Amino acid sequence: MNDALSGHHTHDLSWLDAPCPALDEAAAETARQRQDQLTKPRGSLGRLEELAIKLCGMQGSATPTPDPIHILQVVSDHGVVAEGISVFPQVVSNQMLRNIAEGGAAVSVLARAIDAHMEIIDLGTVCDPGPIPGVRPERLGLGSGNIAREPAMTEAQLARAMNIGRESVERAVAAGARLFIGGEMGIGNTTPATALACALLDIAPKDLVGPGTGLDAAGIARKTRAVESALALHLAPGRSPLELLRRLGGFDTATLTGAYLAAAQHGLPMMIDGFIVSSAALTAVRLQPRARDWMLFSHTSAEPGHRRMMEALEAKPLLNLGMRLGEATAAEVTVPILRLACALHREMATFAEAGVSEG
Amino acid sequence: MNDALSGHHTHDLSWLDAPCPALDEAAAETARQRQDQLTKPRGSLGRLEELAIKLCGMQGSATPTPDPIHILQVVSDHGVVAEGISVFPQVVSNQMLRNIAEGGAAVSVLARAIDAHMEIIDLGTVCDPGPIPGVRPERLGLGSGNIAREPAMTEAQLARAMNIGRESVERAVAAGARLFIGGEMGIGNTTPATALACALLDIAPKDLVGPGTGLDAAGIARKTRAVESALALHLAPGRSPLELLRRLGGFDTATLTGAYLAAAQHGLPMMIDGFIVSSAALTAVRLQPRARDWMLFSHTSAEPGHRRMMEALEAKPLLNLGMRLGEATAAEVTVPILRLACALHREMATFAEAGVSEG
Repeated sequence: MNDALSGHHTHDLSWLDAPCPALDEAAAETARQRQDQLTKPRGSLGRLEELAIKLCGMQGSATPTPDPIHILQVVSDHGVVAEGISVFPQVVSNQMLRNIAEGGAAVSVLARAIDAHMEIIDLGTVCDPGPIPGVRPERLGLGSGNIAREPAMTEAQLARAMNIGRESVERAVAAGARLFIGGEMGIGNTTPATALACALLDIAPKDLVGPGTGLDAAGIARKTRAVESALALHLAPGRSPLELLRRLGGFDTATLTGAYLAAAQHGLPMMIDGFIVSSAALTAVRLQPRARDWMLFSHTSAEPGHRRMMEALEAKPLLNLGMRLGEATAAEVTVPILRLACALHREMATFAEAGVSEG
Repeated sequence: MNDALSGHHTHDLSWLDAPCPALDEAAAETARQRQDQLTKPRGSLGRLEELAIKLCGMQGSATPTPDPIHILQVVSDHGVVAEGISVFPQVVSNQMLRNIAEGGAAVSVLARAIDAHMEIIDLGTVCDPGPIPGVRPERLGLGSGNIAREPAMTEAQLARAMNIGRESVERAVAAGARLFIGGEMGIGNTTPATALACALLDIAPKDLVGPGTGLDAAGIARKTRAVESALALHLAPGRSPLELLRRLGGFDTATLTGAYLAAAQHGLPMMIDGFIVSSAALTAVRLQPRARDWMLFSHTSAEPGHRRMMEALEAKPLLNLGMRLGEATAAEVTVPILRLACALHREMATFAEAGVSEG
């Protein structure tokens, strides 16, 4: 056990069973009735109406808002890169960690542009970068294990990762956040995410594996073999979602699974980003189906397997902009749309107020 | 000819033939190269990359921006409502004109929220509302003619409408606008828009007619018959797009056709909204194919025929949020996405700047 796993850090997972609150159905119904009284044909604002109603139900409010916004952006490495499943060298995770902290990465530019608070956590890259201003070090090791040959994590690493996610949510709640966004960066991380999704959804690797950041056909074949090896090694009857996460996931998906579950337990709405975080969202929902109530879904990733995960989560993502970057970017792009949906709900005149005849 | 068509108002249409400038291909190419140097896998920001590159080519700039934004929101009535093609009474156009001016309509709420300048023009409703603060009166008559029985407009009305659009664009350009958005409101206006699109695209009414603001099956049947009557009356070999616009359009689509053509002539990028304005965009492109270069497309409307218009314009709309309101609302919702695309293009670090290895 390395330094980060000793001492004052908590590994307790009993909180995983704490219940998620129910949505406020009365507030949602009031919002639905208000939408039908606003000066427009019923339903003509489409998903913007649904968003406002959903957020009213989540926040138990007639004046919902996504602000303030808390983004948890995690960075970590993945041992499965040894199987030749990424076009980028592993050192890029560290370089990008610094770029994210310095504000040059996509997630950072968008966080500034949408005025969100971003917390950056180093969960463990292959080289310890030392202190970086703006980065919270929670290094669980020099990257997770190579899932094609070993479990991704020890039980202690899994427990600590999930608590890191929970603690981030607790900081968000303490700061008054009204929307939680999880993001990730880490070379090779579509491979564990794919393996985890295959295991949870009982889908063959060839039906879920995609090019990630830009693999060619030979690379995709290697990635498929790596996922097949991982499943052959780690799948066994009766294994729990938590054990599948420990064996097939990564520090990132473990942390985000903990964060999503904790957010649901706090009744904190989440906007789910792309492929990797969706495997964490799926795991959280397998641990507690009610967690699903607190999730909004940002986009259909260009990574082909993402559609299958959205189907399994019965999610209708808002956007389809051909994005496949991760780093919370698609979730960030939806924030202004959420804000506009809230503004319409709050500020449009009703037929009665405006003296407009109903159809 | 009523008061509004006399005196100092211009009816000259010789400007319709003025050329549209070409896009700045060098600026677009520079932008494309920059996108490939930003710290992300190539192409991983999808449509956001395309948007930034396109806007660089439109603005001849390495730091594109949609701001300031000029919205032209027109309101008018349509004689074809006599055919029973709308669920709302015609008086609603006047009521909504006031609601738009007072800030309670969707277009108004969104214009405030995105910090856009909105110009509201009364093109002629069935009752003259008298002066309304914030509304520019340019009344061309008590609504356009019933296209099922007569032309929508006289030649003088058509000419004046197109000049009203041009003049709005000229005010936008004088104020330094970098993005032009056209919006419309007017009970029954999907019917002339559908008839115009059928004529321009040679599509049968039954393949393009939709429920508009909420027609039932019987209403859709009446609307289809109205469009069929209009086409039977007004289609003839060799009729120009301008003559089809005069006969089958409305004050709104005529004004917006003029505006879109003028915006293209000024090299002012446009974000095209939904069903009705798309028929105007289509007409503008039929008048000058190069106008297409200056258009961006916001969404696929829930009105079913919209997809056919987007195909004809070879447009890939950004959003599909089930919206079908018009009033520029879908175009307004895309503005934050444009801004984020510009921020990413401007502010992301390159691989070299961030010391990140390329894949």
